[in-house]
Amino acid sequence: MTDAQSLNVLVWGENRHEQIEPHVAEIYPDGMHGAIAAGIRENLPAAQVSTVTLDDPEHGLTEEVLAATDVLVWWGHAAHGEVRDDVVERVHRHVLDGMGLLVLHSGHWSKIFGKLMGTSCTLRWRSEEDRELVWTVDPTHPIAQGVPNPIIIDQQEMYGEFFDIPAPDELIFISSFTGGEVFRSGCTFKRGHGKIFFFSPGDQDFPVYHHEHVRKVIANGVAWARTVRPERTTPTLLRYESGEFFTGHGYTGAIKESE
Amino acid sequence: MTDAQSLNVLVWGENRHEQIEPHVAEIYPDGMHGAIAAGIRENLPAAQVSTVTLDDPEHGLTEEVLAATDVLVWWGHAAHGEVRDDVVERVHRHVLDGMGLLVLHSGHWSKIFGKLMGTSCTLRWRSEEDRELVWTVDPTHPIAQGVPNPIIIDQQEMYGEFFDIPAPDELIFISSFTGGEVFRSGCTFKRGHGKIFFFSPGDQDFPVYHHEHVRKVIANGVAWARTVRPERTTPTLLRYESGEFFTGHGYTGAIKESE
Amino acid sequence: MTDAQSLNVLVWGENRHEQIEPHVAEIYPDGMHGAIAAGIRENLPAAQVSTVTLDDPEHGLTEEVLAATDVLVWWGHAAHGEVRDDVVERVHRHVLDGMGLLVLHSGHWSKIFGKLMGTSCTLRWRSEEDRELVWTVDPTHPIAQGVPNPIIIDQQEMYGEFFDIPAPDELIFISSFTGGEVFRSGCTFKRGHGKIFFFSPGDQDFPVYHHEHVRKVIANGVAWARTVRPERTTPTLLRYESGEFFTGHGYTGAIKESE
Amino acid sequence: MTDAQSLNVLVWGENRHEQIEPHVAEIYPDGMHGAIAAGIRENLPAAQVSTVTLDDPEHGLTEEVLAATDVLVWWGHAAHGEVRDDVVERVHRHVLDGMGLLVLHSGHWSKIFGKLMGTSCTLRWRSEEDRELVWTVDPTHPIAQGVPNPIIIDQQEMYGEFFDIPAPDELIFISSFTGGEVFRSGCTFKRGHGKIFFFSPGDQDFPVYHHEHVRKVIANGVAWARTVRPERTTPTLLRYESGEFFTGHGYTGAIKESE
Repeated sequence: MTDAQSLNVLVWGENRHEQIEPHVAEIYPDGMHGAIAAGIRENLPAAQVSTVTLDDPEHGLTEEVLAATDVLVWWGHAAHGEVRDDVVERVHRHVLDGMGLLVLHSGHWSKIFGKLMGTSCTLRWRSEEDRELVWTVDPTHPIAQGVPNPIIIDQQEMYGEFFDIPAPDELIFISSFTGGEVFRSGCTFKRGHGKIFFFSPGDQDFPVYHHEHVRKVIANGVAWARTVRPERTTPTLLRYESGEFFTGHGYTGAIKESE
Repeated sequence: MTDAQSLNVLVWGENRHEQIEPHVAEIYPDGMHGAIAAGIRENLPAAQVSTVTLDDPEHGLTEEVLAATDVLVWWGHAAHGEVRDDVVERVHRHVLDGMGLLVLHSGHWSKIFGKLMGTSCTLRWRSEEDRELVWTVDPTHPIAQGVPNPIIIDQQEMYGEFFDIPAPDELIFISSFTGGEVFRSGCTFKRGHGKIFFFSPGDQDFPVYHHEHVRKVIANGVAWARTVRPERTTPTLLRYESGEFFTGHGYTGAIKESE
Repeated sequence: MTDAQSLNVLVWGENRHEQIEPHVAEIYPDGMHGAIAAGIRENLPAAQVSTVTLDDPEHGLTEEVLAATDVLVWWGHAAHGEVRDDVVERVHRHVLDGMGLLVLHSGHWSKIFGKLMGTSCTLRWRSEEDRELVWTVDPTHPIAQGVPNPIIIDQQEMYGEFFDIPAPDELIFISSFTGGEVFRSGCTFKRGHGKIFFFSPGDQDFPVYHHEHVRKVIANGVAWARTVRPERTTPTLLRYESGEFFTGHGYTGAIKESE
Repeated sequence: MTDAQSLNVLVWGENRHEQIEPHVAEIYPDGMHGAIAAGIRENLPAAQVSTVTLDDPEHGLTEEVLAATDVLVWWGHAAHGEVRDDVVERVHRHVLDGMGLLVLHSGHWSKIFGKLMGTSCTLRWRSEEDRELVWTVDPTHPIAQGVPNPIIIDQQEMYGEFFDIPAPDELIFISSFTGGEVFRSGCTFKRGHGKIFFFSPGDQDFPVYHHEHVRKVIANGVAWARTVRPERTTPTLLRYESGEFFTGHGYTGAIKESE
């Protein structure tokens, strides 16, 4: 898992706008997930990058697939509600076990992001071709390397504060928009043994996932989100006797049997 | 809501150990919730402190009750699974709207805490009469006022790291135990418009909720967790036109109708 | 110190622009410190608010004055280098002991702020009448109460990222400017027993300290920065024998005498 | 700088206890800095690890040496006051420019750590052969890899809370001691473009720097503290015209010349 050549990335795409809206299909002929995957391959040539979509069986997110995924990248928007709850539970468990997760743009309102954050993940928005400037506020962070400060995105949907998320562990990027709004656009969170990066640039109506620097940030995020732990393990409640630090015992119930 | 006399506190108790285990009933003749409530009244005499339990209709947590509650205090252990999911959803919404929440001790594994944290909230534990020392690491925090450093609790269940929670917004207390384990025992989190304080001391097998300093910390936490916002509001996703900062428009769907 | 009527606030003003530049004197006929003090009095009528300036003996910051000050508010710009190092040491010690500190606008480059932060506190800037929008990202924070989101300041100097400060304990406000820059404009820090609030709006060339909402935020910051600890004490290195938690012994040197 | 083979590490040792106290010389025949350097070489065989000491000209910390150092490791105790202020300024500048810094054990009271933290960095202590247990609270952090949870150190000086530091950016380790004290023993901080890791285990009276896991953590810290930025640059205050995001202008004074 410390070998760059073994990095397995899975891009999950909702793939609905591309089917329904011709202007989206025109911008993203290989699907948005296709463009996102291409950007990762471009920047991390040794990575194995696959794509699955909502309409695949189990949304393409079977136990086997997730177990073999180092970092999952999530883009959804119009069909968050169609994602099965049992699949969300499964993804959630894999994140707590150590799978990395990138949540992109409108994924802020996905079930999996809400479940990991515990908040409403709501925000203010407007889709009117604002220019977005993405400013770095944590210049030593690996995710901020190799891009200018600011990144200039000529046309973008506006996302603005208040963004109802927990205070991020690290705030890397803050965006401004033509209308004057600001947004915490690059945030990291650790949950369980998993590392999560939320990055807001990206929209179905604009060619943001073809943008060189947006692609670079996403690839940086993927590289960062891969756990450095040697194996994936589930955080577990265990009993430890006094002086016994390394061998825990499983839970046997809240009420003592003898009572 | 800024008037101390109007502070409405609701202590939720599972109230099962007290019914089943005579030694718990002996330590807590008014129930654990009764002892917790008494400690809050003792330290915040102007507060209105009520108690409800799991076996009350809707666990005592109706919409009306929650709407009138400034701060909810939660103690559960043996019956987390019996708490209805719809009631958990309701409590969760009220926290995001601005209701304060204290989660005590074994409440770490309650549905509501897990839903707000997004993690497994697991830990290591041992119930063998360890001495717990509760050390202050944030001496200017209002929750740490009026208690010695450390607080000495002669007999306690051990809770140890790794405690699978998000990095807290503020780490106020760290505990050690006779066996040498440590625990982040006093943590604050903001979620939505709500303020949350987790405090780990407290157990059914030991008279911890009769401890003067534990009571003081819980009362401090209650006072801190009451929101200073003038009214409770739900974080909401709204559209704002350019130049229109104060009047948002409700969501009308992800796919534009005209397309 | 918990009685609002005893809140002693001291506004420190450099008072040079007002003397040298007629257009500043016109905007601030009572000095910038005078306008800042008036805004605090307006919002905290029970507070005792005084002003001192650079040209006062010991810059007005004698041991006696600082010992009687709950919260010090600092505005400087053109003459940071003239502030005596021994006075900076004295202010620093009082902050670590528990005196609250507000650092306003160009105070980011003051000796006292640099000494407390440990960084260069540099930033990008432009003084060209940008409009500043001050967005709240921590809506439950007491400092963010009573002001609109965003606060609109029609004319302001631009301050932009990267702002070289430690990651703040709490990020309350993020500003945007007409030119598209963003800035972490409202940040809190705890250092020693002291609470520090940095708030960037405010400039000698624009009437920002006459702005109703800027005044409200500054007053909120003053109220927040006052310590809740019962007395001011210096963090001290002390030796504690085993089992002796409350009585420490003073330092007697790094090398044991008997050796 | 991204090539592991080019990692240049400099261990700074005070080297006084070893000269004055025979029992220290016996534990550390190559000096404490020698033992620390050996542990880094052992775990990072491709790194170039050098040592310098207080008694070297300019304490071994000339401009040329610092410019060629990726990560500086600092151990001092008895002679903090003898470190020249101009050398401290130089080290401070290099940290803000991007040099990594590890501060070990009693280095908490060094001039450079105090200057970077802005606080008193005081704590409680006792040197009586306590056992220290070092618990991991951030299991996904690279610094926590390859060591057991807890690390067991049979004999150690006690360091306890309250440790007067800013809230760390990341809290990785918390220690407990036989006497029951706790300590935030592994903390990271970013300052300017530099990354700082404080790790408290290690003392002149005990063979802590021969401990396998302590050595591993220090080596992990070195690898982590090396910046990922492509070059070292000083955070600088610059003026940017509207619409000009990438070319700043130097500061020309606080008072406009024409006025």
